[in-house]
Amino acid sequence: MTITATPSPTPAATTAHLRSTELEHRIARDPARFRVLTGDRPTGPLHLGHHFGTLRNRVRLQDLGVDVFVLIADYQVLTDRDTAERLQEYTDGLLLDYLALGIDPARSTVFNHSAVPALNQLLLPFLSLVSVAELGRNPTVKDEIAHSRQSAVSGLMYTYPVHQAADILFCKGNVVPVGQDQLPHLELTRTIARRFNERYGNLFPEPEALLSTAPLLLGTDGTKMSKSRANSIPLGATADETARLIRGATTDADRHITYDPDARPGVSSLVLLAALCLDRDPHEVAAEIGGGGAAALKRTVTDAVNGHLAPVRARRAEYAADLTYVRSVLRAGNERAAALAERTLEEVREAMGTFR
Amino acid sequence: MTITATPSPTPAATTAHLRSTELEHRIARDPARFRVLTGDRPTGPLHLGHHFGTLRNRVRLQDLGVDVFVLIADYQVLTDRDTAERLQEYTDGLLLDYLALGIDPARSTVFNHSAVPALNQLLLPFLSLVSVAELGRNPTVKDEIAHSRQSAVSGLMYTYPVHQAADILFCKGNVVPVGQDQLPHLELTRTIARRFNERYGNLFPEPEALLSTAPLLLGTDGTKMSKSRANSIPLGATADETARLIRGATTDADRHITYDPDARPGVSSLVLLAALCLDRDPHEVAAEIGGGGAAALKRTVTDAVNGHLAPVRARRAEYAADLTYVRSVLRAGNERAAALAERTLEEVREAMGTFR
Repeated sequence: MTITATPSPTPAATTAHLRSTELEHRIARDPARFRVLTGDRPTGPLHLGHHFGTLRNRVRLQDLGVDVFVLIADYQVLTDRDTAERLQEYTDGLLLDYLALGIDPARSTVFNHSAVPALNQLLLPFLSLVSVAELGRNPTVKDEIAHSRQSAVSGLMYTYPVHQAADILFCKGNVVPVGQDQLPHLELTRTIARRFNERYGNLFPEPEALLSTAPLLLGTDGTKMSKSRANSIPLGATADETARLIRGATTDADRHITYDPDARPGVSSLVLLAALCLDRDPHEVAAEIGGGGAAALKRTVTDAVNGHLAPVRARRAEYAADLTYVRSVLRAGNERAAALAERTLEEVREAMGTFR
Repeated sequence: MTITATPSPTPAATTAHLRSTELEHRIARDPARFRVLTGDRPTGPLHLGHHFGTLRNRVRLQDLGVDVFVLIADYQVLTDRDTAERLQEYTDGLLLDYLALGIDPARSTVFNHSAVPALNQLLLPFLSLVSVAELGRNPTVKDEIAHSRQSAVSGLMYTYPVHQAADILFCKGNVVPVGQDQLPHLELTRTIARRFNERYGNLFPEPEALLSTAPLLLGTDGTKMSKSRANSIPLGATADETARLIRGATTDADRHITYDPDARPGVSSLVLLAALCLDRDPHEVAAEIGGGGAAALKRTVTDAVNGHLAPVRARRAEYAADLTYVRSVLRAGNERAAALAERTLEEVREAMGTFR
């Protein structure tokens, strides 16, 4: 289905997309050869943007037979704010969403940063492999610094792409699902892997980017859907809350509903959301609503979202009634991640000639 | 004894010295209340400059009843060079020197960075507590960058004062023996402790500086004695090697030996070395040699050094014959340090609200 008008891609972006498509074919042929590292910061509830952008792709990869690691990046909450608020609540929420969407703890590993010291230790040798100049010119870090809640850039913000390299390489992840804007981070991880291998002997894969093909969903205010902007529809919302949020969404004065993301971003994002939930073409969805106006559009979207999420929400409620089990999933994942990190750290010590 | 002419101290330096003297009195009154963190990078053999500058002070503190932690900072070797060479050899050498000089593994803890992941993890929350601007303006780091062997400043060099804060705070060290030039590092550790306590609740002491009162020994070439300049007299050298190294030391054309560090640095440093080994006043030592010239001076120094080090070297040779035991000292220290680091990390997780 045709989803959005795409801007003219740069040659580099085209190359990255071609590579990613080719990687997707290799994954389909032999999924067991691939390990994916992906994750979220526990800064708020996950929403429909996450669902269609990254979450369902993780479940797809898991179900293909890829070994999926999902990181709850609790320390990274502090890159752009002074303290991490409601960490337990948000972490529980992430776990509920993952399980409800189909992440299977028997096949995938969910873990959090603060529970895996051996992973975090890799930050030290990896910091020795990059220059301050390389850290300073990362365009994504520059952008995130511009949007930070803090007046001063913290050392954690500055070094977090190196921490991300530790996240990926501790488990020798060889595939990382990323958006276009995260390619510089992954490039730094590849550089770190390559330099480590050159200096100390071959130990790490150079992970490849699996570029997101997900369409951009706008929030209910017409800007990017974001945890921090109160414009999102959380996966954990009730059907009534969902209806209320969609009723409040920005549309425009033209009663005739069309799918035209450039000219009518608000209306088109709602059409797209319905289309994604119904797995249909957004132009068809728009045509069916036709002259029904914003009210009909919003009814369609609400029904589509609530219909699509009903089974997810039912599973979520079941898990929410058993937080002891939910947290045991994280503990088991942490044990698996810690064992793997210890093994990798031993290999790193061996390669570098440190000993104890 | 009067040891060197000291340059006029700045008011800040005077304050630091007054505080340090007062701290020394408090330590003498109740040594069990204090824990010291100190250490070395395994970049080469320790020498007489280390001995009189820091090593014997550690043993003194241990023997007073202070809890002493000695860190072999193996990752920090990489702050100013690409790879760490001969790490096992240098680490063995440090262990031999510590044991020969009187570090007692039953009372003090010797450990190395790469064996204590929970310590290294503290780097992450601590990086969130300092700004990039604070890291960039550290004068000691600036100076070390100027003397680095690397063309580009590594991320590890840039962040190492934060890693040093983790070294000190993981064991809740409250005293750090430092030279004047390291005061900015300790100030950063104090800042990190204070900010952590303010944001998350009181957990860390603000460690105090115990300023070195050790005189500056010059190397055999008249410049600062340094592991990396091939101008030092290693603790592990034989008596013959020591004699040869002292014979090659820089002196001057004046046959009459005096102690005048400003006007005659080479000769005076040799006089000082003899005086330190004999525990005598350098002016007296110089007066006794009088018109005997450089040859008599060097005989006096050689005898003094070899006499002073004879029992140390005898013990060193005994330990060197039993490297299995020597390495077990490090393993036991690592176990103690790791248990302590795990406990501190649990307290940090508790305070920050991260969980697993």
